[in-house]
Amino acid sequence: MEFDPDLKAKLLFQLNEILPQSAILTAEEDLRPYECDALTAYRRLPLAVVLPTTIEQVQAITRTCARMNIPVVARGAGTGLSGGALPDENGIVLGLSRFNQILGIDAENLTARVQPGVRNLAISQAVEPYGLFYAPDPSSQIACSIGGNVAENSGGVHCLKYGLTIHNIQQIKVVTIDGDLLTIGSETLETSGYDLLALMTGSEGMLGIVVEVMVKLTVKPQTVQVLMASFPQVTLAGDAVAAIISAGIVPAGLEMMDNLAIRAAEAFAKAGYPTEAAAILLCELDGLEAEVEEQSTRVKAILQQHGAGSIHLAKTSSERARLWAGRKSAFPAVGRMSPDYYCMDGTIPRKHLAQVLQAITDLSEHYDLRVANVFHAGDGNLHPLILYDANRLGELEKAERFGADILALCVKVGGSITGEHGVGHEKLDSMCVQFGEAALETFHAVKQAFDPHELLNPGKAIPTLHRCAELGAMHVHHGQLSHPELPRF
Amino acid sequence: MEFDPDLKAKLLFQLNEILPQSAILTAEEDLRPYECDALTAYRRLPLAVVLPTTIEQVQAITRTCARMNIPVVARGAGTGLSGGALPDENGIVLGLSRFNQILGIDAENLTARVQPGVRNLAISQAVEPYGLFYAPDPSSQIACSIGGNVAENSGGVHCLKYGLTIHNIQQIKVVTIDGDLLTIGSETLETSGYDLLALMTGSEGMLGIVVEVMVKLTVKPQTVQVLMASFPQVTLAGDAVAAIISAGIVPAGLEMMDNLAIRAAEAFAKAGYPTEAAAILLCELDGLEAEVEEQSTRVKAILQQHGAGSIHLAKTSSERARLWAGRKSAFPAVGRMSPDYYCMDGTIPRKHLAQVLQAITDLSEHYDLRVANVFHAGDGNLHPLILYDANRLGELEKAERFGADILALCVKVGGSITGEHGVGHEKLDSMCVQFGEAALETFHAVKQAFDPHELLNPGKAIPTLHRCAELGAMHVHHGQLSHPELPRF
Repeated sequence: MEFDPDLKAKLLFQLNEILPQSAILTAEEDLRPYECDALTAYRRLPLAVVLPTTIEQVQAITRTCARMNIPVVARGAGTGLSGGALPDENGIVLGLSRFNQILGIDAENLTARVQPGVRNLAISQAVEPYGLFYAPDPSSQIACSIGGNVAENSGGVHCLKYGLTIHNIQQIKVVTIDGDLLTIGSETLETSGYDLLALMTGSEGMLGIVVEVMVKLTVKPQTVQVLMASFPQVTLAGDAVAAIISAGIVPAGLEMMDNLAIRAAEAFAKAGYPTEAAAILLCELDGLEAEVEEQSTRVKAILQQHGAGSIHLAKTSSERARLWAGRKSAFPAVGRMSPDYYCMDGTIPRKHLAQVLQAITDLSEHYDLRVANVFHAGDGNLHPLILYDANRLGELEKAERFGADILALCVKVGGSITGEHGVGHEKLDSMCVQFGEAALETFHAVKQAFDPHELLNPGKAIPTLHRCAELGAMHVHHGQLSHPELPRF
Repeated sequence: MEFDPDLKAKLLFQLNEILPQSAILTAEEDLRPYECDALTAYRRLPLAVVLPTTIEQVQAITRTCARMNIPVVARGAGTGLSGGALPDENGIVLGLSRFNQILGIDAENLTARVQPGVRNLAISQAVEPYGLFYAPDPSSQIACSIGGNVAENSGGVHCLKYGLTIHNIQQIKVVTIDGDLLTIGSETLETSGYDLLALMTGSEGMLGIVVEVMVKLTVKPQTVQVLMASFPQVTLAGDAVAAIISAGIVPAGLEMMDNLAIRAAEAFAKAGYPTEAAAILLCELDGLEAEVEEQSTRVKAILQQHGAGSIHLAKTSSERARLWAGRKSAFPAVGRMSPDYYCMDGTIPRKHLAQVLQAITDLSEHYDLRVANVFHAGDGNLHPLILYDANRLGELEKAERFGADILALCVKVGGSITGEHGVGHEKLDSMCVQFGEAALETFHAVKQAFDPHELLNPGKAIPTLHRCAELGAMHVHHGQLSHPELPRF
């Protein structure tokens, strides 16, 4: 449906009152780069893209859009993997790329105030002279912005020890759809009133627009070690993960890759991985010298007890970098083995790791599609990569069904349909599997409290009850799953 | 105003349909124990107290109350310090003391499922055989219940390292005012949808009634050390705290007491505190042997650099217990020095510790009331104890004004009016100082989303805009304070 040209002209006139010409994009060639985020399977052109530079401009923009009933999709660096920044054809994209200043570093109090368009890695680089870093490190950290991290509650390899975004921010400034500016959280650990900081974090741009973030900084550890262990069976590696955590050791990172992922990464990155292993674990330990030495000894013992074939300790920074380079290149490396792949993101309780891996293997046979498994094993966050060929008729749809089955499995064993990539546009249907009617109604009521006309990122993250009913999933209540398409398990 | 006796009879008839006679209290002598929580300055008798034993009963009770427009005040063990469980004269108290079962322990996955009436310490006792414990340890941990901990997002001495309640729970079951049962959170670190777990935690019974909690368990540290350092000046102790944290050391506990608190505690508990010191720090380190040894060496060096007069290391468990006994008895000990005391609870960024302490001293002179200071120094959580005599005309009111001034100070330096005791009935006015109109409106909108008729714990935690306007505080926006009664600072 064509958008009313009169209304569009009126909107652009109003936006021109707020912003200079250079901050309003309307030509198709200018809009094209904004038509999707890193989930490129879905694309839409917005009416316009606006690129404000001040909080007052953001307030005026949302106020105008609220008055004119125009949807607003906030966008950071566009590195999201679930289509959270997919535009609305009848709305504008509010890009925060020009909010790119670090406003202040308070090394004594271990905090920094930054604008939302600041890149994740740029924070760590800026505070490096103080011996500090910003802990959450999504794979996209070179490019992704802190505002997007807040919107998706991003994690990363080190979130097992250092937590998700919510555990590493203290205060945010948020513009509401009505143009109000809220300061949420405090400069201390605790705050009063309802925990709006946590509510806003991970809300995928549906409750407000983050215009400033006070992040917590972490003191760089004195020393770091990385251990790599190979296993003849995937289940042994899974058990070793559980044993390390149960022993009270909290590694900085604890990653697992299966054989297909190992072979792909090794061919690509020459990381020195044992290509015949069924699985490898990468375990990073950090802290004080003596602490890391003692932990390392204990981890090695646990790995041996659980049947590790070989254990390699990388002590130098270049050796460590090489081991991690393999892991970090796993996604593009798998991309070379197949014309297309579909990256899933679910979580499970650690103890079900072996069981879920077996079920994924069974599904792989059922759908006749290969799958490479890469996990943040320590916190039970799975990233199965489903290999397919989009040029083969129906294979994309088959991959999507396979992915949905994996997420349903995650829910069934007590986990979640998203670990760190968000729901966005991609996983709306899986939300019907995860949540019952009462929970979804509560989500909608919360949305109404912030955005009664549903103008902020409409249609994302929380499915309508109608959509879930059509899926036939509305009889799913309180985790008691009886999804009709759920594989027997 | 007398409650309509017909309506009361009808309510009791309905409750009798749901509960056995023994679970409904209406006689005045039975209601008396429920008239207040641990903030005994405020007392009210409810219409009735109900003591359900099943989730279905709780659902039926809230459904009945919603239909009849009867307020419902949930109550755990009644140890709260801000009047959060103060009854409503026209409503019922829903006591959860009979929900006292530990439903399951999953040592492998480091979780336990418990009913809300289970005592905090009982969880740690139950999982002790597995070498585990439940980390948050409010001073009331012998008596307080986990449901109340969730309602207040309780902390404790160890929350610096191990976090608040929100960081130590994974999933809760909640009954809404409409009688729906929601399962919130997941069995893993991450979840999808808005973060209702964090929103519900600390919401003081205003959004729903917690009927089950899945807590995270922590592996007991291999070894523990406690250091006590004395300082000739309070500011030196404050600087030492900041230096320890800035060095990247995260003690299990880092507590500070000033001279009046030291003398009170020593007279009471014979802990071996230096009574001439201006301040002492208690620093608990835990972890692996080697780790604790190395941290201990570094902490001692920092303490010396910051002018510590004496440093004492308690290595045996009995010595440690003695040092902590002093700290834990500080409140009752101060109670022996004065007919009455008023315990405050605010937070500040660590770097402002010295500045805020000086301002509290000035206020103490201004109001002519003594104050003893006990802090969770590591996370900037202050507990000034204001000494007064309720039998002296106007002295309670003076103590309350002094307390409000301290909280306004906390807000002014970027902190919060509550660390771990909640807002409850006590600190409604201070909420007007902390938050501006837009933030309060957002809180009310969130409340509406869960409880549109304001039946759950009405009148607590979030003041009406009208109340704030009457206080003359409604021009306070976004932490930019210009409270008319705020001391110059």
